[in-house]
Amino acid sequence: MAAQQFDFGMIGLGVMGRNLLLNMADHGFKVIGFDKDEQKTTAFEKAATTGTTVKGVSNLKAMTDGLSLPRRIMMLVPAGKPVDDVIESLLPLVQPGDIIIDGGNSHYTDTLRRVQYLAEKGIHFMGVGVSGGEQGARTGPSIMPGGDQEAYPHVQPMLEAISAKFKGEPCVAHLGKGAAGHYVKMVHNGIEYAIMQLICEAYDLLHRGAGLSNDELHQTFDAWNKGELQSFLIEITAAIFKQKDDKTNNYLVDMILDKAGAKGTGKWTSQDAMDIGVPIPTIDMAVTMRNISALKSERTNSAALFAHSITPVTTDKATFVQQVHDALFFGILISYTQGLAMLHRASTELDMQIPMPSVVRVWRAGCIIRSTLLDLFTNIYDQNPQLENLLLDKQIANMLKGKEAGMRAVAATAVTNRFPAGALLNALTYFDAYTSAQLPINLLQAQRDYFGAHTYQRIDQPGSFHTEWNQ
Amino acid sequence: MAAQQFDFGMIGLGVMGRNLLLNMADHGFKVIGFDKDEQKTTAFEKAATTGTTVKGVSNLKAMTDGLSLPRRIMMLVPAGKPVDDVIESLLPLVQPGDIIIDGGNSHYTDTLRRVQYLAEKGIHFMGVGVSGGEQGARTGPSIMPGGDQEAYPHVQPMLEAISAKFKGEPCVAHLGKGAAGHYVKMVHNGIEYAIMQLICEAYDLLHRGAGLSNDELHQTFDAWNKGELQSFLIEITAAIFKQKDDKTNNYLVDMILDKAGAKGTGKWTSQDAMDIGVPIPTIDMAVTMRNISALKSERTNSAALFAHSITPVTTDKATFVQQVHDALFFGILISYTQGLAMLHRASTELDMQIPMPSVVRVWRAGCIIRSTLLDLFTNIYDQNPQLENLLLDKQIANMLKGKEAGMRAVAATAVTNRFPAGALLNALTYFDAYTSAQLPINLLQAQRDYFGAHTYQRIDQPGSFHTEWNQ
Repeated sequence: MAAQQFDFGMIGLGVMGRNLLLNMADHGFKVIGFDKDEQKTTAFEKAATTGTTVKGVSNLKAMTDGLSLPRRIMMLVPAGKPVDDVIESLLPLVQPGDIIIDGGNSHYTDTLRRVQYLAEKGIHFMGVGVSGGEQGARTGPSIMPGGDQEAYPHVQPMLEAISAKFKGEPCVAHLGKGAAGHYVKMVHNGIEYAIMQLICEAYDLLHRGAGLSNDELHQTFDAWNKGELQSFLIEITAAIFKQKDDKTNNYLVDMILDKAGAKGTGKWTSQDAMDIGVPIPTIDMAVTMRNISALKSERTNSAALFAHSITPVTTDKATFVQQVHDALFFGILISYTQGLAMLHRASTELDMQIPMPSVVRVWRAGCIIRSTLLDLFTNIYDQNPQLENLLLDKQIANMLKGKEAGMRAVAATAVTNRFPAGALLNALTYFDAYTSAQLPINLLQAQRDYFGAHTYQRIDQPGSFHTEWNQ
Repeated sequence: MAAQQFDFGMIGLGVMGRNLLLNMADHGFKVIGFDKDEQKTTAFEKAATTGTTVKGVSNLKAMTDGLSLPRRIMMLVPAGKPVDDVIESLLPLVQPGDIIIDGGNSHYTDTLRRVQYLAEKGIHFMGVGVSGGEQGARTGPSIMPGGDQEAYPHVQPMLEAISAKFKGEPCVAHLGKGAAGHYVKMVHNGIEYAIMQLICEAYDLLHRGAGLSNDELHQTFDAWNKGELQSFLIEITAAIFKQKDDKTNNYLVDMILDKAGAKGTGKWTSQDAMDIGVPIPTIDMAVTMRNISALKSERTNSAALFAHSITPVTTDKATFVQQVHDALFFGILISYTQGLAMLHRASTELDMQIPMPSVVRVWRAGCIIRSTLLDLFTNIYDQNPQLENLLLDKQIANMLKGKEAGMRAVAATAVTNRFPAGALLNALTYFDAYTSAQLPINLLQAQRDYFGAHTYQRIDQPGSFHTEWNQ
């Protein structure tokens, strides 16, 4: 093969890496992929569109020698040590000015460390979030790059070409300094956790509560997807209820065990939000519910001990479906609000300089949390890029007010009738706390000062105060 | 001074260090304290009970030279770098076999690192949690040591002497390997966060909701403290409502700003629980509420924008007070349940070998979360030390059943009338999820498999499955 003829290299030809690279080839770039597994390199070449320049190799040097300068190399390997291993194996084969991209879900602190480590060697390291699943990778994902402003123009044409498009605009933008790309992707996944959990709770209320069949659920979600709830996750939920199981001919959803898996990005979102003091309780609850779901045998034992069950919902069915619709919309809007408030805070707190209007732009198409709401958020952040919280926007406030009655009705039903609808409840709690000028935390400060002399502030004068409380 | 005459040394004569050491001197031990600040060493000596052997020095070598062998040295300095600095300054002055104790709130991973570092030098390092506040340190705290079994007997007499006593039994016990002491103390503080938040929510419902005055609140909490809610935190809450402000002669609680501070142990509890996959949503919400409370200016702005307020509670006052009592009891019991389930899991997951009966024994007196419930938990864990979760115990199940109606009534009131009672709601959600054999997480697994090929398990056969979903 002619030396240095390839525009872009990929390390790791699993389904995501392969699909991204094939997508790039379809857009006219010459691409080369490396995988130790020769079956994967062969499969990769075979999957290429006729007329595209696609090469698979299982020798890393063959890949780096084949790339034009500066080299553009993305890796899609499991987060953690594999990323460091790839970096070490690349170091002898690259040169200053080359660009290494981590397209996986690495934790942002790892990315920061790697950026620094490679910068010392003159090599650009970019953390890039990619969302859209297998299918999105092949046909147009949402792409969240962060890192060196200097390196970005060298990869921008490729990323823009392969990205999803929203009304012609590519769903990719430089999203900030250092590890900002991976941070934004992490929070994207946190929001995804929350929305998925909210949909599950809506399903539970409609199915076990109001007795909707899978057919009715399909119709309901399908109808919702044509209205203000329109989004990828509602769309696939509608599709899921139609799917038959080829083993039993039951509906497949009824044959699936209620034990969640998790890859960790939702957990990181909750943990990292706590580190910078940002409340994201709907996302926290989504993480919690996955953890509770994993305790299947304990749940089965305690259910037998308590021997109780949910109480069916007696509200008129059509009314209840509308209430659940409104509660779900309310919960989803609050989930975005929490995630975006976290990014706003991280932007300064972690010096990531995240351009909020670009974040919501990039999420409008291609990614798992795409929805019609993102277009609205883009307008809002364009007008006010420094907005601390979406709840401070009048248009959002009005939307929430319109759904509040339904949300409260569903919440009351859930707590009365034994539905563990924690993500919905935490969305409402967040709303009620964030819109309260007064919280009962004055008592908490009194308690802390009482037993620990931690001091408190006063409402009538500045300063810190301690009281010798009556013992 | 005579060489090596002292039994125990303390580094850091802040209020906690000083009080612990004076407490030890009162029990007949000869103690020596070090602080760079000579005012503190002087104040320390002056505060000693007549006839006790107490020495304050501002030269570290004077302290280590004064201690009998093996040296027993506790430090009470701020967590983080100060602890490492003290260790480095001690290293030239101690010898193999000596025992260094960190009595502060260090994160358990730091403690693990220090245990290993000092073990290489033949020095025993113990992480020891101490709870009880200023007053407890002076008169009898709850003490949570972990680490070397070999070293423990050398400090056991001192720790038992100064500890709180429950029916004559010292509230101290060796609580496991490595960093177990600090881990148990961290979870203790997480439970403390949850109970404090629950009490604040009860206060809010009674005060803003049912219109109880501070006098009535005092009477209510005072009465509650004589019944099944009897506990230190309920007791001081009752006292707080009586306290007048010497500046304005208003009730002091009304003059305190509703912005919480935090030292970090609650946050760590939530973060570390997520790391080992244990759900503790009531504690998470307590952390969240402190973070929301800190956003005072945002809250004030959004309150003005939404221009709504809580709706007063119309339930008959006596009935409502009883419902809130039951909800609070329910929430507190669930908070202990979550924290203890976390310790049970950490015991194996992090190989800490935590003896659960000892944990609840040690918490029966002296510490901030002491309550009559701990005595009950001691009986339960004595009978079943490997109990996974208190909800699987019949006696606990019956107690919760008795409070369930009140809890649900309060939860419905909160979500209907705009009270941000998130800790109460999350206690109920945890209960409803943990006692559900079936959760709607089958749908979540379907979603994950749909867009990410993450596979799912089935209810009718073992294995992992992937479906090519209808697109």
